[in-house]
Amino acid sequence: MLQRFDEHQPVPLPIGIIGGLGPYAGYDLVRKIFRWTSASTDEDHLPLMLHSFPGWIPGRPAFLLGEIAENPGEDIGGVMVQLARCGAKVLGMPCNTAHSPRILDTALSRLRAFSSDVRFISIISSAVRCVSAFLPGGGRVGLLGTVATLRTRLYQDALEKAGLEPVAPDDSVCVRVQQAISSPEFGIKAFSDPVSPQARKILLGAAKHLAEDKKVSVLLLGCTEIPVAITETCLWDIPVIDATSVLARELIRASCPERLKVPRDFQI
Amino acid sequence: MLQRFDEHQPVPLPIGIIGGLGPYAGYDLVRKIFRWTSASTDEDHLPLMLHSFPGWIPGRPAFLLGEIAENPGEDIGGVMVQLARCGAKVLGMPCNTAHSPRILDTALSRLRAFSSDVRFISIISSAVRCVSAFLPGGGRVGLLGTVATLRTRLYQDALEKAGLEPVAPDDSVCVRVQQAISSPEFGIKAFSDPVSPQARKILLGAAKHLAEDKKVSVLLLGCTEIPVAITETCLWDIPVIDATSVLARELIRASCPERLKVPRDFQI
Repeated sequence: MLQRFDEHQPVPLPIGIIGGLGPYAGYDLVRKIFRWTSASTDEDHLPLMLHSFPGWIPGRPAFLLGEIAENPGEDIGGVMVQLARCGAKVLGMPCNTAHSPRILDTALSRLRAFSSDVRFISIISSAVRCVSAFLPGGGRVGLLGTVATLRTRLYQDALEKAGLEPVAPDDSVCVRVQQAISSPEFGIKAFSDPVSPQARKILLGAAKHLAEDKKVSVLLLGCTEIPVAITETCLWDIPVIDATSVLARELIRASCPERLKVPRDFQI
Repeated sequence: MLQRFDEHQPVPLPIGIIGGLGPYAGYDLVRKIFRWTSASTDEDHLPLMLHSFPGWIPGRPAFLLGEIAENPGEDIGGVMVQLARCGAKVLGMPCNTAHSPRILDTALSRLRAFSSDVRFISIISSAVRCVSAFLPGGGRVGLLGTVATLRTRLYQDALEKAGLEPVAPDDSVCVRVQQAISSPEFGIKAFSDPVSPQARKILLGAAKHLAEDKKVSVLLLGCTEIPVAITETCLWDIPVIDATSVLARELIRASCPERLKVPRDFQI
């Protein structure tokens, strides 16, 4: 296929999205890429592929918590190679837990064995850079995420390296947040469209706990299911940073920076 | 990659979506496939790929209306082959205009030259079957679509063959509907998330014109941009059939019928 862009315009690099982890997070990332693209016709939108194979990839939290032995990074790497074969030059994966080095390094090894010119944009690094821009002098960053993401200290280590102070909710609150994500009765993975009022209530309660009890200056939604339920960009006067939205912006920047919309205050 | 489904469960066939025509219609179809899938965990969702290359495919209405010579079916066929190479066994294309035989036949020839075991699910045939189920004794079907879809009589011919009476809006209304879709100032292609109030007002006005002036018994949203703006399943006591939603259900049925949710009345 030819690329039919105006010869005076930059040619966007195709974006590949490793979806299915979970499916709604993949769809949420696609939506946010469209939303942050400066476009007034179909043709202005960026070339993009979403590959969502939820049934093919072993559970990420189950692997990290030692419940299963099989590393999901192998199959995630398989999806990366598939996207690269289709021409993707910029990859993003809307799943924080799968960015754990034990999983991601395995996946990237498979990708690198196939191709060295595909860029992987980390949701963790992107989100931490965004938080740093909000808090240039450092500060307390409230973290909402899965138990596996918090236990593996994915965000904590990255935030500390950037001179920021990560603050997780109390243990009992973390358990509730996990239920809001994965309960088959009311969790976001089971009820995404619409999200159950119960899941949203738990997540708002956890956010309030971080804002009021823990006195954080920024809230970081560090699980790609959570922004499906919490769409506010500010809660109790505290900026809410949605890692999926930040990843969407970084993917556009890597594909074609000229097409990235300028954000308004707090709209990240 | 292995398929990690329970051996007692049927293995779903991977779904491939030809997106980008326009981009939001592709995303809307993904959303509707997720919504109509009976799933309580990530793994319950079906394997799915969305390939959205809006800048690579020549304008479908422009080709059909004789404004450009290049047949977009060639590049659409290229995307179909790419999806088939990745393992897609069931294909859907959320763009009614691109189902015009002059475009679709060219695309399917490219696909058939590559593979004969990939099933293409037509949005037109699916929607007409759904309308027939609502009106088993025949009746007047109000059509909302692009000028190109209406002029090429895509739906009119298919509805007439099924013993139904297609009713298009008056010409002046059709022009307004086209503007609601493609105007760079307020159209859905330029403003999808959220849709502009002006585009929604025009489409609701056209729907009312069909319901009240033309006395139709069913409204068929025959352009995949329109359900991004009109999400009602019933207007003025008339069922509204969203062709994208019908296509989503048919794709699930072709991939893994056991995973298809049962619809409630009028919720199509």
